[in-house]
Amino acid sequence: MNKKIILASKSPRRQELIKGLELAYDIHTYEVDESFPAELHSYEIAVYLAKKKALHFPGDLTNHILLTADTIVWVNDRLLNKPEDEDDAFRMLKTICGTTHEVFTGVCLRTTEIVHTFFERTEVTCKQLPDDEIWHYIHQYHPFDKAGSYGIQDWFGYTAVQKINGCFYNVMGLPVSRVNEELKKLGV
Amino acid sequence: MNKKIILASKSPRRQELIKGLELAYDIHTYEVDESFPAELHSYEIAVYLAKKKALHFPGDLTNHILLTADTIVWVNDRLLNKPEDEDDAFRMLKTICGTTHEVFTGVCLRTTEIVHTFFERTEVTCKQLPDDEIWHYIHQYHPFDKAGSYGIQDWFGYTAVQKINGCFYNVMGLPVSRVNEELKKLGV
Repeated sequence: MNKKIILASKSPRRQELIKGLELAYDIHTYEVDESFPAELHSYEIAVYLAKKKALHFPGDLTNHILLTADTIVWVNDRLLNKPEDEDDAFRMLKTICGTTHEVFTGVCLRTTEIVHTFFERTEVTCKQLPDDEIWHYIHQYHPFDKAGSYGIQDWFGYTAVQKINGCFYNVMGLPVSRVNEELKKLGV
Repeated sequence: MNKKIILASKSPRRQELIKGLELAYDIHTYEVDESFPAELHSYEIAVYLAKKKALHFPGDLTNHILLTADTIVWVNDRLLNKPEDEDDAFRMLKTICGTTHEVFTGVCLRTTEIVHTFFERTEVTCKQLPDDEIWHYIHQYHPFDKAGSYGIQDWFGYTAVQKINGCFYNVMGLPVSRVNEELKKLGV
């Protein structure tokens, strides 16, 4: 299979990561309603949404392989998605500071023949941060496009993230090493 | 203590990381012989060399706090330092692929009054890579300035690093979250 990748994601982080794999790709973005059945838990949500994004692709995949992904933060048996506003971001950051949470990225690879999903899980342990530092982060870094309200590759990751267990790039939004492996299995 | 940091490191990765902490700093580099006593093991080597670099600082620290660091890769009870040439890099990458190694960064903070050292440890698990991909990496990315012959933030990290346990930035050369914490304790 010698197909070019279509990355269906607006995330600049995913675009940067897929570029780092040295694979040829195009970007194609479109709107997908990101609701999901209420009975889903943790990684099921990420996989469900990655697949939903793939199944809603409006184009032709004859010569392409479509790559979609969804990243969620899961803590205390609850989902943290993208924050709605500053107060929501503050609430999320207070929730994850001083404890360990899980980050799941669900990935879907789709061609004309197959729809293949998988996910990666990373544990992230954060320190306590004083409230004024959390507000500093929200005001300076505007983490409103990020699940859990933080970027592991920015000031929050530098100061508050103590350690991780799993794939770092999974937390950034795409488990590139696993994606590379799955693409190889499909002959890309 | 309201002292400006002097980062004594040629590593562009350390410079980028300390910048990400939003702290004011100057760069001051000088040559230090990086030999160490043969009886030292693992983290002792990294701490010894960070301290040695700090003690050889040729300038005045009245208004500054000096930050030095040394990163080593430790695998099968042996040190992997920076590779001498392409064959040495190949040998190192063959050693770390398909197994887990440890990365230690020793850090030294020095003022006119104190010399404070600490280290961080991160476990890195790498997949097997075919020989042609290892050579591709060496020829395209020239990892000769890197302990263990790889960068976790480049193509090798994207494709071969399966997971880590500990601080990601420690593997890049500076455990920024710990450094920030230790600087706070010193009142910086």
